[in-house]
Amino acid sequence: MRIREALLTPVAFADPPLLNAMGVHEPYALRSVLRLVGEDGVTGLGESYGDEAFLTQARRVAEQLTGWDVFDLPGLRRTVERVVGETVYTDLHGLTGGFSTGKTLASVYSLFEVAALDAQGRLLGRPVCDLLGGRARDEVEFSAYLFYKYGAHLGAEADDWGEVLTPEALVGEARHMLDTYGFRSLKLKGGVLPPAQETEGIRALAAAFPGHPLRIDPNGAWKPGTAIEVARALDGVLEYLEDPTPGIAGMARVAEEAGMPLATNMCVVRFEDLEPAIRAKAVGVVLSDHHFWGGLRDTQALSVLCRSFGIGLSMHSNSHLGISLAAMVHVAAATPHLSYACDTHWPWKETDVIVPGALEFRDGAVRVPDGPGLGVELDEDALARAHEDYLRCGLRKRDDASYMRRYVGSFQPNTERW
Amino acid sequence: MRIREALLTPVAFADPPLLNAMGVHEPYALRSVLRLVGEDGVTGLGESYGDEAFLTQARRVAEQLTGWDVFDLPGLRRTVERVVGETVYTDLHGLTGGFSTGKTLASVYSLFEVAALDAQGRLLGRPVCDLLGGRARDEVEFSAYLFYKYGAHLGAEADDWGEVLTPEALVGEARHMLDTYGFRSLKLKGGVLPPAQETEGIRALAAAFPGHPLRIDPNGAWKPGTAIEVARALDGVLEYLEDPTPGIAGMARVAEEAGMPLATNMCVVRFEDLEPAIRAKAVGVVLSDHHFWGGLRDTQALSVLCRSFGIGLSMHSNSHLGISLAAMVHVAAATPHLSYACDTHWPWKETDVIVPGALEFRDGAVRVPDGPGLGVELDEDALARAHEDYLRCGLRKRDDASYMRRYVGSFQPNTERW
Ligand SMILES: [Mg+2]
Ligand SMILES: [Mg+2]
Repeated sequence: MRIREALLTPVAFADPPLLNAMGVHEPYALRSVLRLVGEDGVTGLGESYGDEAFLTQARRVAEQLTGWDVFDLPGLRRTVERVVGETVYTDLHGLTGGFSTGKTLASVYSLFEVAALDAQGRLLGRPVCDLLGGRARDEVEFSAYLFYKYGAHLGAEADDWGEVLTPEALVGEARHMLDTYGFRSLKLKGGVLPPAQETEGIRALAAAFPGHPLRIDPNGAWKPGTAIEVARALDGVLEYLEDPTPGIAGMARVAEEAGMPLATNMCVVRFEDLEPAIRAKAVGVVLSDHHFWGGLRDTQALSVLCRSFGIGLSMHSNSHLGISLAAMVHVAAATPHLSYACDTHWPWKETDVIVPGALEFRDGAVRVPDGPGLGVELDEDALARAHEDYLRCGLRKRDDASYMRRYVGSFQPNTERW
Repeated sequence: MRIREALLTPVAFADPPLLNAMGVHEPYALRSVLRLVGEDGVTGLGESYGDEAFLTQARRVAEQLTGWDVFDLPGLRRTVERVVGETVYTDLHGLTGGFSTGKTLASVYSLFEVAALDAQGRLLGRPVCDLLGGRARDEVEFSAYLFYKYGAHLGAEADDWGEVLTPEALVGEARHMLDTYGFRSLKLKGGVLPPAQETEGIRALAAAFPGHPLRIDPNGAWKPGTAIEVARALDGVLEYLEDPTPGIAGMARVAEEAGMPLATNMCVVRFEDLEPAIRAKAVGVVLSDHHFWGGLRDTQALSVLCRSFGIGLSMHSNSHLGISLAAMVHVAAATPHLSYACDTHWPWKETDVIVPGALEFRDGAVRVPDGPGLGVELDEDALARAHEDYLRCGLRKRDDASYMRRYVGSFQPNTERW
């Protein structure tokens, strides 16, 4: 199936003021939606970052794809390498580790690989998970992604979630999310309040939801010594401790003392990071993310690699829409070695670009869609509205820190602050 | 596509008296041919070992597959695990490292995975390499697999290759193989003659075929000290030195001193072997082999793993027929990180079970077949003849050492002999 055109549409969707070590989420999250339109009219869908720097690279690749056969993924890789060259895509939120040409190539490639696999599946009449080795599970479990948050965006009314800055409010947020979605695992985005307060937050969750696996992810906000203290305080309480401190050396120091495995989506973000991390025994769990690990097939290879080295696999999430959730569900379904419930920002958004109904949460899990390809359909009107929102909102890159400074003038990112 | 029946047919084909560290090839090599017959009449082909111990396990799996959907590879894995249980398949030739339940499961699974992928491809009208991510190359390069050999099987007339036990005869064998197939890389199966003589053999090849990459594989016949001596003597002459000595510790000792990378298909034969080998810096090249690495998809995962750790990838061969060659070609074509020409025993056989023409060597390479699935068709008459040969030859397991003792009564395998 050869491509007639590749349409890339930047979109924006409303996002609450969620806090993290780098600042606070802006009123809109940005994404890109890709449609690969085949000569026979079959379309493949992809979704990824919406920052201008990413869009620029993706647009340049899209322009090269006329006549490309969607089964020729090595050809796609060559095109991406040629177009992207030595470019390094840097984002300002910095929550997924360092930047490199390799990570840039993997990220841009991924957007197109997912859309190609969707197109392949639609053409062949098979769900994407069947093209990835078949379903190791029929449904994919997700975790409740809890955030400290402000009650309202600047100049706006309070959102339904309200302000969450205390253990009590955190338990309330969690209860609402569990009641609605049925999640089992709970993940707290930390790195926002002093570690003792976040430890109290976790303790409150443990008390309110006994038996629910718990995780905290301060995105490297702690010094190794502090991380070791928190690890001791929460021994037996956490299923894993995610990126407590930056860098492989610091993580290795903490790992030596911590009773629970350390997880990361910051110090291991490329295949090249695995050897030093494994030699240093720095991580026990890697959070995959097909958006920057080079697509669905490379995410599966990462899984085999982790299994080979006795490392667990979980899944990272950025704010995303339904095309990405479908891709996450298919790759997770087809990946036997996936040791933990996956992260998702899904509960924090209110709109989407896909026709509703294909992806439903039940008991915290999403059933793999049975339809061909990713199994989700684009809602053209919703896409147009989300593109309008993109044009109207004026945001062109995610910058949690600058936005945070409008709340707290002196704010600096909390990296290794405590 | 659900399976109506899974037909497993043991076959035998004539094999010359090729020498290795474990003895000498018997008059017939044994293989198994699998046909997965779908309810709709589509058939998927697989090929693997023909030893009775392997056939027993494969037969038990085959009996369980009625109604199985060929896209459900995780379901296949579960069936293989249930049926094989704790069984450890051991072979007597011992040329592919240690035995384990995991390697047994991976080997049995592989036979069925290849046939399932062939069936998938036929059903979808796509070549298998397209189901593996598309072709990174249109043709796959192979090496000339050179052997020392006796001139004739016991009680038989001399074969066309004649006796090869001297550098001159070795060069003659190589010249014949290069003239016929156009290979670039030359691999010498060593571990047969004292290391000094095999070193002379390599020197003779280097002199006769300047510019051709050279390898030698004594299958662990040398002590580490000897291996270091050979590595020094052949520094700058070999592209890699394969399994000079047994075990990861010995290989690591040699690797520290050797100027060329060490390759292996003996001390790293399961994903679990990679961590100790990498920690010890024992190997620079892994020889993949889908027959025991868990099929085509896991062979690709192995490739990503090797790439991540800066390890080269080549491909191992046992005596095989055309179904296996097709599988080797497809997986090699779809695997970007394949650093060396692949091994094949192809030139040493005279018959096959597939319709001729789909797989042709030109300039040492085989073009990826364009047809659906593996792109090869079974020749039912040839299969029947090969099965007749199996029944008639009386061999039920490969045992190079016992056969060697009929030539040299006192023979013991040459493992770490020199
Ligand atoms: Mg994280
Ligand atoms: Mg070998």
